Amino acid sequence: MNEHRARSGRQARQAERANKGAKLGRPYITRNIPTYDIAGEEGLLRIEAAADRILAETGIEFRDDPIAIDHWRRAGASVDGLLVRFEPGMLREILKTAPSEFTQHARNPANSVRIGGKNVVFSPAYGSPFVMDLDRGRRFGTIEDFRNFIKLAQSSPNFHHSGGTICEPTDIPVNKRHLDMVMAHMELSDRPFMGSVTAEERSEDSIEMCRILFGRDFVDQNCVILGNVNVNSPLVWDGTMTRSLRAYARANQAAVIVPFILGGAMGPVTNAGAIAQSLAETMAGCALTQLERPGAPVIFGNFLSSMSLRSGSPTFGTPEPAIGSMIIGQLCRRLNLPLRCSGNFTTSKLPDAQAMMEGTMSMLAAIHCGANFILHSAGFLDGLLSMSYEKFMLDADLCGSLHSYLDGVVIDDNQLAVDAFAEVGPGNHFFGCAHTMANYETAFWDSELSDNEPFEKWEAAGSTDAATRANSLWKKRLAEFQAPSLDAGLRDGLTDFIAEKKQTMEDAWY
Amino acid sequence: MNEHRARSGRQARQAERANKGAKLGRPYITRNIPTYDIAGEEGLLRIEAAADRILAETGIEFRDDPIAIDHWRRAGASVDGLLVRFEPGMLREILKTAPSEFTQHARNPANSVRIGGKNVVFSPAYGSPFVMDLDRGRRFGTIEDFRNFIKLAQSSPNFHHSGGTICEPTDIPVNKRHLDMVMAHMELSDRPFMGSVTAEERSEDSIEMCRILFGRDFVDQNCVILGNVNVNSPLVWDGTMTRSLRAYARANQAAVIVPFILGGAMGPVTNAGAIAQSLAETMAGCALTQLERPGAPVIFGNFLSSMSLRSGSPTFGTPEPAIGSMIIGQLCRRLNLPLRCSGNFTTSKLPDAQAMMEGTMSMLAAIHCGANFILHSAGFLDGLLSMSYEKFMLDADLCGSLHSYLDGVVIDDNQLAVDAFAEVGPGNHFFGCAHTMANYETAFWDSELSDNEPFEKWEAAGSTDAATRANSLWKKRLAEFQAPSLDAGLRDGLTDFIAEKKQTMEDAWY
Repeated sequence: MNEHRARSGRQARQAERANKGAKLGRPYITRNIPTYDIAGEEGLLRIEAAADRILAETGIEFRDDPIAIDHWRRAGASVDGLLVRFEPGMLREILKTAPSEFTQHARNPANSVRIGGKNVVFSPAYGSPFVMDLDRGRRFGTIEDFRNFIKLAQSSPNFHHSGGTICEPTDIPVNKRHLDMVMAHMELSDRPFMGSVTAEERSEDSIEMCRILFGRDFVDQNCVILGNVNVNSPLVWDGTMTRSLRAYARANQAAVIVPFILGGAMGPVTNAGAIAQSLAETMAGCALTQLERPGAPVIFGNFLSSMSLRSGSPTFGTPEPAIGSMIIGQLCRRLNLPLRCSGNFTTSKLPDAQAMMEGTMSMLAAIHCGANFILHSAGFLDGLLSMSYEKFMLDADLCGSLHSYLDGVVIDDNQLAVDAFAEVGPGNHFFGCAHTMANYETAFWDSELSDNEPFEKWEAAGSTDAATRANSLWKKRLAEFQAPSLDAGLRDGLTDFIAEKKQTMEDAWY
Repeated sequence: MNEHRARSGRQARQAERANKGAKLGRPYITRNIPTYDIAGEEGLLRIEAAADRILAETGIEFRDDPIAIDHWRRAGASVDGLLVRFEPGMLREILKTAPSEFTQHARNPANSVRIGGKNVVFSPAYGSPFVMDLDRGRRFGTIEDFRNFIKLAQSSPNFHHSGGTICEPTDIPVNKRHLDMVMAHMELSDRPFMGSVTAEERSEDSIEMCRILFGRDFVDQNCVILGNVNVNSPLVWDGTMTRSLRAYARANQAAVIVPFILGGAMGPVTNAGAIAQSLAETMAGCALTQLERPGAPVIFGNFLSSMSLRSGSPTFGTPEPAIGSMIIGQLCRRLNLPLRCSGNFTTSKLPDAQAMMEGTMSMLAAIHCGANFILHSAGFLDGLLSMSYEKFMLDADLCGSLHSYLDGVVIDDNQLAVDAFAEVGPGNHFFGCAHTMANYETAFWDSELSDNEPFEKWEAAGSTDAATRANSLWKKRLAEFQAPSLDAGLRDGLTDFIAEKKQTMEDAWY
């Protein structure tokens, strides 16, 4: 099973690093453990019936998008002004044209990802106005921060995707930001990425830049960019979002359809009700992509949160949304759609114990629920409002460990070590035995940030905490960063497009 | 479904606190989510066959305990000096007399726990020589520390058990420690607890003290104390442990049978092999309890760890043991025995991000694998060598959240909020709606330590990290502690027994 043989000292360590690197540096993970299905058939049917009832009786408003309303009317929904109601089963029928699995292509084909099925893709966090680090505290994000986070993601083998609006580059006018953001992903990363959704035109610009990079025909036939669109929960789809959603679908690109339900505020305070609402809202958004272009790829999203009874503040990384995510995963699989789940959430304002307790619970829920595309895998602090450089590195480390977690256990004669017991026998250690020497290089995930040394050695090395080590590591990574090469002609084409576009608009800051 | 009605302001908040307290203050948890079964039938059969082969071909040594050897000989095992080999199926047959579920009684009957089935019991960490806090750093544990941790556990609704050797009280002679430890559990806690196992006589003293507290006949018929015994992995059972194991079984008390497998050292470096070894070692220990006294309660234990490829140090809270635990849970259920799993493990030397990343992954594995008795639920840092006051409080908070996690989701008309959507309608918030008012008090778990406030409010309150808040909380809890009352006659009986015992021995410090 294993071709590695014992080598000594430095050579072994080098081989080991190369090997671990190869193990991590996959374009995406194919899970080897099942999903964690916690609800039974009867419960799932009741939730589906509740969602159907919400859709048929309460309905969903589609604001500022007459074309969306027109799609619904022609599809046979009951339209009353902006309010659309759906007969039970109607959306499920429409959703049958959506692919259960698709490839999002990267400019480096080795990094293309397969989204859906048993595949798992880790993507950085998305959307914070602020950034933080231990040296400078909290401040508004800039394009430099934005570019830094792309570099940190690109230089880690623990991610599979470059993400989208990793932080808001608030030093660039709002109406021009998307051009610089998409360019940064194209330039500094050779992994797949996401485009803008803040206006239909910005979505179209993002896609147009992909046409320059990948070729017009290729883009029409293949997914090369994702757009993450949010429901205005409860039960409202805003025109900005549906127009962007339709722009992506029209171009055969994948919209990611995500409710935003803080239980007790944008949805019921009870988990089952929030799940039913989430199902209703997401099915409607996903179905709209199919009315725009049947067969367009689309990702079924999930975003649940709880709130603090003491303060009324939103809470993240708590048990109820973790449990809710696992049920939403089951519901999504019954629709045969790829699933997005939110990853690493916390309300902590520091990369501390709270941050990783909440973050790990939240991230493991995404793993267990069967999410195919995990947005927000790394970086969030401050209730999604800040991207933290240190937290990004800590979360990247967790993402690394989840590669091994999702690999599960291989059960064969080598892994069962059937001959090792006879060799070693009772009371002896396995350190140097042939089986250990043949397998140790690939046996265990190795953290980049955890300190496993004995206390005295840790103390002698400066008694650092994990956040301090993360602080050193992101600086080292940025200093060492080398961008993947990009064809000069393509780069010029993109730069010209951006310059031209920017010239047509006055700066807008809102 | 829910009898709570809207109340205003202070009254509502008081009711809410009482209610959450009641929700947490259960004697134990009965899980409402399934176990996470990641291995298929074929894989389980292969692991069982590998364990059978280890038992039949390599065998297990039983050192310094002729009675154990004698038990095996009479049971039909193949005995060759100290080495015992077992025909496939023999141990499974012996284990059929062990109960699948039993009650461990507490001196306060309301706190008795049911161990086995769908029940989950959280118990503090066990066995550290050192203690730590943010003020004084690391030092050897004392009886004062020991008593402090009992107080902290007893005053938290998030635990169900008082634990055992929470830390080593190194200021008490080794041969007398057990008396003061058991007394402290009896005096400062009214929950179930664990006794000594470091010598047969000390096990018997622990049980004898229970006879004073609970009555001799009661103890003969009911489990009131647990003893945690370790395999001397690989494949050696030491006489100290088997004599203690037999002392507990003989008295109809429950031994907890636990291997100690650091992959690559005390077992194979590959997960499947370590799991097979664990199964073999634990089955043998559990079966020995049944040879001593058929029908005695016994708990099937699990302890896996990985090691760092860089340093050779043991690592904890890593993905491989988490995955391994889930498979061991499946194997244990096929034996129909109650399961112990290790809880919250980390190698971090501080209550930092690393500590809770590793701790949360490790603790969730215990939850998912179906463990009925989770030892080490709270307190460990430093690779199990130190009990940290702050980490204890952070872990207690995680234990609280896991009550809600294990409750899963209730799916009924109230929880589905079927009428709330009609009431609220698209685009409106759920803050004040009737359904929210009727349900918010019980909707979400509320952390004692997490800061969910907006950044500015957190900053104004001193920009604390979670460890600092935990530091304040443990001091507050100790200051406010009130011991549960203990009958004076019983107390005197116990004190007399201890004094008498101590008089018969010279102090021994090893």
